[in-house]
Amino acid sequence: MGDAEQISVGIVGASGYGGVQLVRLLQDHPNVKIVYLGGDSSAGKPFYTLYPHLSHCIDLMVEPIDLDHIASQCQVVFLSLPNGLALKMAPQLLEKGCKVLDLSADYRFFNLDTYKKWYGSERDDKEIASTAVYGLPELYRDRISQAQLIGCPGCYVTASLLALSPLLKQGLIATDSAIIDAKSGTSGGGRQAKTNLLHSEADNAISAYGVAGHHRHTPEIEQICSDLAGHDLKVQFTPHLIPMARGILATVYATLRDPGLVREDLITIYTAFYRNSPWVKVLPSGTYPQTKWASGTNLCYLGVEVDQRTNRVIVMSVIDNLIKGQAGQGVQCLNLMMGWDETLGLPKLSFYP
Amino acid sequence: MGDAEQISVGIVGASGYGGVQLVRLLQDHPNVKIVYLGGDSSAGKPFYTLYPHLSHCIDLMVEPIDLDHIASQCQVVFLSLPNGLALKMAPQLLEKGCKVLDLSADYRFFNLDTYKKWYGSERDDKEIASTAVYGLPELYRDRISQAQLIGCPGCYVTASLLALSPLLKQGLIATDSAIIDAKSGTSGGGRQAKTNLLHSEADNAISAYGVAGHHRHTPEIEQICSDLAGHDLKVQFTPHLIPMARGILATVYATLRDPGLVREDLITIYTAFYRNSPWVKVLPSGTYPQTKWASGTNLCYLGVEVDQRTNRVIVMSVIDNLIKGQAGQGVQCLNLMMGWDETLGLPKLSFYP
Amino acid sequence: MGDAEQISVGIVGASGYGGVQLVRLLQDHPNVKIVYLGGDSSAGKPFYTLYPHLSHCIDLMVEPIDLDHIASQCQVVFLSLPNGLALKMAPQLLEKGCKVLDLSADYRFFNLDTYKKWYGSERDDKEIASTAVYGLPELYRDRISQAQLIGCPGCYVTASLLALSPLLKQGLIATDSAIIDAKSGTSGGGRQAKTNLLHSEADNAISAYGVAGHHRHTPEIEQICSDLAGHDLKVQFTPHLIPMARGILATVYATLRDPGLVREDLITIYTAFYRNSPWVKVLPSGTYPQTKWASGTNLCYLGVEVDQRTNRVIVMSVIDNLIKGQAGQGVQCLNLMMGWDETLGLPKLSFYP
Amino acid sequence: MGDAEQISVGIVGASGYGGVQLVRLLQDHPNVKIVYLGGDSSAGKPFYTLYPHLSHCIDLMVEPIDLDHIASQCQVVFLSLPNGLALKMAPQLLEKGCKVLDLSADYRFFNLDTYKKWYGSERDDKEIASTAVYGLPELYRDRISQAQLIGCPGCYVTASLLALSPLLKQGLIATDSAIIDAKSGTSGGGRQAKTNLLHSEADNAISAYGVAGHHRHTPEIEQICSDLAGHDLKVQFTPHLIPMARGILATVYATLRDPGLVREDLITIYTAFYRNSPWVKVLPSGTYPQTKWASGTNLCYLGVEVDQRTNRVIVMSVIDNLIKGQAGQGVQCLNLMMGWDETLGLPKLSFYP
Repeated sequence: MGDAEQISVGIVGASGYGGVQLVRLLQDHPNVKIVYLGGDSSAGKPFYTLYPHLSHCIDLMVEPIDLDHIASQCQVVFLSLPNGLALKMAPQLLEKGCKVLDLSADYRFFNLDTYKKWYGSERDDKEIASTAVYGLPELYRDRISQAQLIGCPGCYVTASLLALSPLLKQGLIATDSAIIDAKSGTSGGGRQAKTNLLHSEADNAISAYGVAGHHRHTPEIEQICSDLAGHDLKVQFTPHLIPMARGILATVYATLRDPGLVREDLITIYTAFYRNSPWVKVLPSGTYPQTKWASGTNLCYLGVEVDQRTNRVIVMSVIDNLIKGQAGQGVQCLNLMMGWDETLGLPKLSFYP
Repeated sequence: MGDAEQISVGIVGASGYGGVQLVRLLQDHPNVKIVYLGGDSSAGKPFYTLYPHLSHCIDLMVEPIDLDHIASQCQVVFLSLPNGLALKMAPQLLEKGCKVLDLSADYRFFNLDTYKKWYGSERDDKEIASTAVYGLPELYRDRISQAQLIGCPGCYVTASLLALSPLLKQGLIATDSAIIDAKSGTSGGGRQAKTNLLHSEADNAISAYGVAGHHRHTPEIEQICSDLAGHDLKVQFTPHLIPMARGILATVYATLRDPGLVREDLITIYTAFYRNSPWVKVLPSGTYPQTKWASGTNLCYLGVEVDQRTNRVIVMSVIDNLIKGQAGQGVQCLNLMMGWDETLGLPKLSFYP
Repeated sequence: MGDAEQISVGIVGASGYGGVQLVRLLQDHPNVKIVYLGGDSSAGKPFYTLYPHLSHCIDLMVEPIDLDHIASQCQVVFLSLPNGLALKMAPQLLEKGCKVLDLSADYRFFNLDTYKKWYGSERDDKEIASTAVYGLPELYRDRISQAQLIGCPGCYVTASLLALSPLLKQGLIATDSAIIDAKSGTSGGGRQAKTNLLHSEADNAISAYGVAGHHRHTPEIEQICSDLAGHDLKVQFTPHLIPMARGILATVYATLRDPGLVREDLITIYTAFYRNSPWVKVLPSGTYPQTKWASGTNLCYLGVEVDQRTNRVIVMSVIDNLIKGQAGQGVQCLNLMMGWDETLGLPKLSFYP
Repeated sequence: MGDAEQISVGIVGASGYGGVQLVRLLQDHPNVKIVYLGGDSSAGKPFYTLYPHLSHCIDLMVEPIDLDHIASQCQVVFLSLPNGLALKMAPQLLEKGCKVLDLSADYRFFNLDTYKKWYGSERDDKEIASTAVYGLPELYRDRISQAQLIGCPGCYVTASLLALSPLLKQGLIATDSAIIDAKSGTSGGGRQAKTNLLHSEADNAISAYGVAGHHRHTPEIEQICSDLAGHDLKVQFTPHLIPMARGILATVYATLRDPGLVREDLITIYTAFYRNSPWVKVLPSGTYPQTKWASGTNLCYLGVEVDQRTNRVIVMSVIDNLIKGQAGQGVQCLNLMMGWDETLGLPKLSFYP
């Protein structure tokens, strides 16, 4: 495909980590040309003043956010903004003919009451919201292919759901038995300066937060788990902040319904479930994933273990929180929406160590 | 107490992290004088060649391990050696009149078959082993006070048991429902050079290991939990290696028998349970501990949470793995054995950040 | 000395890293009782809400900053505030009879024009400022002993001056030949949230800043170096931010006047220079210091090397930037001002690793 | 170019960090097919057992090192071995018609007496060695294009020389005035388990090593600097180990001959010098590079500053030590040797943060 055939893409909210990951990934994407970068606080500056290391590959200015202008320039728009802003922009952009991929929470919920409870905003865009597709390709690949509006999943949610989906889909675990103990690098907190995210505070330290169902990713995980299981269920989700910049490990525990299942059975089931999912790698028996393996890639590595003493399955899931957990997953959805190969333009080889 | 009244203490295995922590702590202890440091590979060298930053405070040589010599010099001996060596030394040292505190696994097990299964060694010291006391003062304070031989607990075990004990002792949780998701800094792996503990491998990475009951601390945790509960039980224990040098966080999940219990009830129960334990701090409602708070101290901080949606209690327990999880706990036991105040000579204020 | 004989100390600006270090150190000081903690933004809160790990040892409230009240309560006041505030408080506190130790830059300069050039503020307190003593005990011990007002040195400055002083005092190096390449942990940037100090930005990264004489510590270093040399001189000072929370290493290069000097000569000279300085340790030949050795202590370790090929001396100086580089040095000055032993109440043993 | 036109490449010493970087880079290279991976200790194992995250993209076995076999399979051979081994293999491989790129020190020296002095080995391959070209493309691009044998530079050397070359080539600095204060991540020490490279030792710590000309990269830097300057000269080189996995920052100081030169002059000179070097980026005035900008890329970023007070130029140079400092530079040389574009198949966009 020559340059003439590249699609035009814009990114609204280009200055944060989601934005810079999108720029990074889309610069390397053969079928995409970035034509617009938008932001409020940095409007009027060259993008490379925010990220000087990219000065050799991108010379776009950050522009003010003007929806008419954006729609006139872009076939596809990524929204990478704080929660509550995309819902004001997506309807107009869609109406003007853009495809929209939103990285915030605004279009993740099937039920807007849940959204309101956790995120606070009233919604005027209910009809539009009902057309949004949840952007986890491993579960909703077909719908994503047909969608005009994607609500991309949260980072913790992605790691958790890829670990749990085969179990839930097949009805292998006891209802409400799932416990997700998740550990995230600090970039998950974004580029806004917050005291608890300072290097001097976060280095050499680990702590839990949002314990006992108080993290916003809990209802999002439960929504999709319930969809997979075919009935409402609850999960225990505990996020932790650990001293590394990138990566998430979710360690997931659940009680097996069938005490006869062994590790190799589960690995077979997982391997089959993800047979057509190029971005999920089920590890061989006895191998457990490390976050650094996924760093800088769109991959999810899954390690599966069974404890026959306790009759529990333990699944370890690692992703790069900013790629498979955010921008890369958005690009994966874009590939599907455009009818391209799901792997197009996305990194699959980490630099190690 | 003047110098004349200080007791003479020796450390066998002084070159590792356990050894240097003991040296560090005992140098500051008002009632102790270190008179002997023993080691194999470093025998004949001044101790400060191993740890040059201590040259201004200690000029002892590392000496060969000669039990007669040790017993003639020391009233109390700390053994800080790889598993399987203390069991060959402790009997003689005891016979010669020394009190012995062992930091290895050799004297932690009530049932030596369990020891043999997990650590491999046959035992000729069964009678002696039966006199050993498990060195967790918060649970076995009285027995420690009377003991001549202490088997000091593992680091993960300490963090886990301090989180679980009030629940088990009071019968508050469903049998076998406890899941311990533990995260340790890399110093827990010791000072031996191993590839997976290299900075370049361990930095910016997290992974689980010993999953599904395969870590040696599982039987040790289950032994004490069963003792507290009054019947045999199983726990799910998953250790993780995280990119920090010091500290452990254990996040412990269990199902409450009584669905009416709320967070404040549990905090009251925990506070009462540890009322006479100066080294355990139960945090106020809604406060979750961070490992760095405990760093460089003998403290354990506990955060307690209840999720009424799932009827689970979640306890977060942090310690410094090398102090409360190892050498500091040994000194705490020593204080009890000598009839001194349990807090004597032990650090209680971390440097933050 | 019983409690009745403890002096009453207040800390203004208790919420930052300087403040919490002072609290930490003074809590352990046998001759001091903290009676007042002051702050603006956190006034009215218990101090432990800012640093929950200290709840077991301090229950003071943070109070508003009222100089009359402070003076009525405190014999000694530490000011740990942003630059430009101490100069408005110190005169009144001194007039009311307090001794004052200022951790900011306000009282570090012999020439207030230099202060104005670099820090911007006009000064109404010139007479008072002329009585201030520069709080580096290794150089100005006697004057500190007599002082009522101390301007405590900057962290980089402390590491640099302890490396350079013997060379300058003895006239061993070529004028203007000194180059200081300094590397600091991120806590040197304080607890204010700044984007470049976020963990995700600062981890796995190193960069220089304030290059070519543009850092405020340059004139401070040059002032004292000139004082030692007896004539004006310039130094090249380059600070770097490195991915660790605590510690500074200054690597100092200078050209020797006498090409015949060898490493051992220099070590002899350094050892003699610091013979009566308990907080400076000159390392043996061939040993180079590591920042972690000094962590959590008031020590400075110096490694000295000569390159006979290039006729340069290279001195490596490490300190804990928040202790010997800030709060600990303040306490060391306090000890001298009160006629106590210079080491009283200060930590000298790091936890390693 | 289709698969049929790809060249066949082998890597001897595939298990270390140099090896895995080569595998990573060459897998993405459009004109290369990896056909052989060789090693001693891991011969007979699939390569992905050493690096499980690569199991989805490479299924080669590690084979024993048999030169006849290698030469029969490979047009180009990378040697990534400890020093002193390549010199025994390269002559035979060249004779059998392979092109050879050596990542060790064996073919870096113009004068084998210097090699012997620093690396100890006698040489039987003097004639062959005299045909080796020093693999720094920015300085020796034409010779590399014609070469059959490349001695790839050391990591510190690359960062240092790219900072110094314009100054030396143009005769801008005083002889012997250059001081290189270099800071490296821990992966520079390789994947061999060494105590000082353990995470628990290296984290939160910085120290210098090989001070005063005792590091092997000193003679290598001086060799090339002398070649550029046209006369023998000496540099002061001090490496430091800092707590990050990847990256080098070299901060280089030198005295300008012409005191009239200002920062902008130097930036102009540097920009001109590197005009045809796609992998070197000279930063705009006042911008200083951060190692993370180069991470995962083959780029070198240079920041240039002049201190008119001291008449010194200060150049900051950052690279990824394992890419531009090792394997990437080898691939860049390969591109030149094959007549391909110098940038082919090499990464130019880092993931940030």
